[in-house]
Amino acid sequence: MPDPSVPQTRKAPETPAPEHSGARGVSRRTLLGTAGATGIVLGAAGASVGYAAAPAPAAPLTSLGSDRAMFHVKHQPGITDGLQARGHLIAFDLAPGAGRKEAAALLRRWSTTAERLMAGEPAPHDDTDVSRDAGPSSLTVTFGFGHSFFTRTGLEKQRPAALDPLPAFSSDHLDTSRSDGDLWVQIGANDSLVAFHALRALQKEAGGAARIRWQMNGFNRSPGATAHPMTARNLMGQIDGTRNPKPAEPDFDRRIFVPASGEPAWMANGSYAVVRRIRMLLDDWEKLSLTAQEAVVGRRKSDGAPLSGGDETTPMDLEKTDAHGEYLVPLNAHARITRPDRNGGAAMLRRPFSFHDGFDADGTPDAGLLFICWQADPLRGFVPVQRKLDRGDALSTYLRHESSGLFAVPGGAAKGEYVGQRLLEG
Amino acid sequence: MPDPSVPQTRKAPETPAPEHSGARGVSRRTLLGTAGATGIVLGAAGASVGYAAAPAPAAPLTSLGSDRAMFHVKHQPGITDGLQARGHLIAFDLAPGAGRKEAAALLRRWSTTAERLMAGEPAPHDDTDVSRDAGPSSLTVTFGFGHSFFTRTGLEKQRPAALDPLPAFSSDHLDTSRSDGDLWVQIGANDSLVAFHALRALQKEAGGAARIRWQMNGFNRSPGATAHPMTARNLMGQIDGTRNPKPAEPDFDRRIFVPASGEPAWMANGSYAVVRRIRMLLDDWEKLSLTAQEAVVGRRKSDGAPLSGGDETTPMDLEKTDAHGEYLVPLNAHARITRPDRNGGAAMLRRPFSFHDGFDADGTPDAGLLFICWQADPLRGFVPVQRKLDRGDALSTYLRHESSGLFAVPGGAAKGEYVGQRLLEG
Repeated sequence: MPDPSVPQTRKAPETPAPEHSGARGVSRRTLLGTAGATGIVLGAAGASVGYAAAPAPAAPLTSLGSDRAMFHVKHQPGITDGLQARGHLIAFDLAPGAGRKEAAALLRRWSTTAERLMAGEPAPHDDTDVSRDAGPSSLTVTFGFGHSFFTRTGLEKQRPAALDPLPAFSSDHLDTSRSDGDLWVQIGANDSLVAFHALRALQKEAGGAARIRWQMNGFNRSPGATAHPMTARNLMGQIDGTRNPKPAEPDFDRRIFVPASGEPAWMANGSYAVVRRIRMLLDDWEKLSLTAQEAVVGRRKSDGAPLSGGDETTPMDLEKTDAHGEYLVPLNAHARITRPDRNGGAAMLRRPFSFHDGFDADGTPDAGLLFICWQADPLRGFVPVQRKLDRGDALSTYLRHESSGLFAVPGGAAKGEYVGQRLLEG
Repeated sequence: MPDPSVPQTRKAPETPAPEHSGARGVSRRTLLGTAGATGIVLGAAGASVGYAAAPAPAAPLTSLGSDRAMFHVKHQPGITDGLQARGHLIAFDLAPGAGRKEAAALLRRWSTTAERLMAGEPAPHDDTDVSRDAGPSSLTVTFGFGHSFFTRTGLEKQRPAALDPLPAFSSDHLDTSRSDGDLWVQIGANDSLVAFHALRALQKEAGGAARIRWQMNGFNRSPGATAHPMTARNLMGQIDGTRNPKPAEPDFDRRIFVPASGEPAWMANGSYAVVRRIRMLLDDWEKLSLTAQEAVVGRRKSDGAPLSGGDETTPMDLEKTDAHGEYLVPLNAHARITRPDRNGGAAMLRRPFSFHDGFDADGTPDAGLLFICWQADPLRGFVPVQRKLDRGDALSTYLRHESSGLFAVPGGAAKGEYVGQRLLEG
């Protein structure tokens, strides 16, 4: 019986291509023309063959595919960009024996790879072709460093105090194997194959220098699925993120990003990410009546308006009572407790993905939120808010924090630089 | 310390809403207007609040959101419809004690739920609001019956011979806990929240009658991510599905669907689905050179053209040799072995989702294809093709069949009917 892994022709079947074959490096730009970055629709009149047999509608490149985020920017991509339909979170640990030098080479390779993929070009080595025909699809790649990274690389003196371990919270049920990590990579894109392609390319560039510690997949609404000018919904059905800080607000940068003159110097224009896998206890949550759900959150489920009235963007009136003297927004409502003006101005930018990893054996969905929040200082962002939630937030009953990570995410790399270079070559 | 699950107001906080509150049943049609089914863009000029803080572009309802598949059609939806960006496959087993009567009631509930959700309306009971603002997003729900269903319901005499267990193949590494099942539900949509919403609604409607046996999540390219009029790619980077039968072909219906006069009568206009979780051994595959990968498949990776020349749609010339007398399409190339004209006309309609469920501890991706193929008779579709592949397909080395299911999918339900009614009340 022939070995099926060897192509059977009459003679020697093939000359293996060189490992880094130039033939693999055909730029997707030649397929996209100049449309990739500009949103011009190519091929709209072309016949669509389609995978399924149905007469599929022509499939033009829309802004979903052509939208492109830039890699060389002041702040790393993936922080203030719009939510993407698909996300991957990956923590890597440096391999035994790998130190500062190997980490520097890895971040250089990763930065080159991320820049090319975000431009809709193939990976620098052995591209898998999985995203070959697609536009950049708003791909972003974001890199961060965990507490343990600095020990392993002998860079303890460069470790920011802000990376000190988070305090324990009573609602924590943390799985350490899915928490922390030396390096953290966040991938987001509006196309699942583009996102997977990036995940695989970055994993392969890690080579012998680092290996995956944990990895999680998430999703958000697809662009174009809704006409409603509202904030995103989570898997509880609630509009979530209404009170997120807005870049137009005067203190946005101060709250979210380390200043250009901040400490340590390598974190200039960077930010700190708190990453938590928050399981939603949907079976319990969905047993509540609509009224009870709204009282837990403090907002109307349909449109996110505060229970004190108005629409989603109306400021919440915490003192307002009904005819019986009852607070319209209950004292332990989630939206009351998380109000920035009740938390000493603590603010963080939440930019999550939902997750769903199937069902437990008893039919309980393993689903919830890959919570990611960004702030200039976790001790003035996530920590004080979570402390307050921990003391009596009505929503906490329906949530379980299953993993936790805290990562220092340096500023964006300048042209010719790689992410973290000021740390690793400082 | 107050019980955080009880909203704290000054008096008794709430009157629980009735279990099936009408207040939860506000139709999303009131949000979508008439645009849901017609593709008119609503709210394109509306300000988008957006979840992240970035000045998100306005998010109009595009055809991605407004496209709608019909429930009451000759063949069930989700068979010849275009590939969707997100998919859920779920197998249910009837609960102990549940029989034909409970199954009939369940299929009636499921059909009502599927029809409403596919129209962009809320679920009939306790809608979770997860897809409240979204259009139908091409949602399809498809129902099928497995071999064991007929035993559990005393309907053995109605069991089609076509549901006889598939033969064993040497490449099978089947996990029985993720194989088979009494009932099978396929959900597809172009928005992940719409798909999850449907999954959860159908699970809840199962109530005490059936419970989840296994469940898998998958994905395909997002509409608009590519301008290229080519067939879909899989996670090996290959264009896959080029030779799928097309509805315009004269024998399409005969090959894919049971005739209206076919046997058993309740399967009129139905089809049989073979469902396999096929893991791709990507670490091995990606070590091959481009030339070797193309020889394994028999087609060019870049554009899917046969190695005998032309473009993706050019018929493959199996006899063509190069200057050295070597077959251009190797004898064990996947595309040669699966050619319908080499399989006694065997044909199936493949309509898969890719999957990626993270990584094994050693960094191996748990990824591949949720292979779903449709045919009028598995013994003249999947089985003969897989038998040939099993005997020396070069691609089999890089694949592992990890689960298998075979389901009888009845024809579409007429107005006022539910799916499977002719079986369950026949």
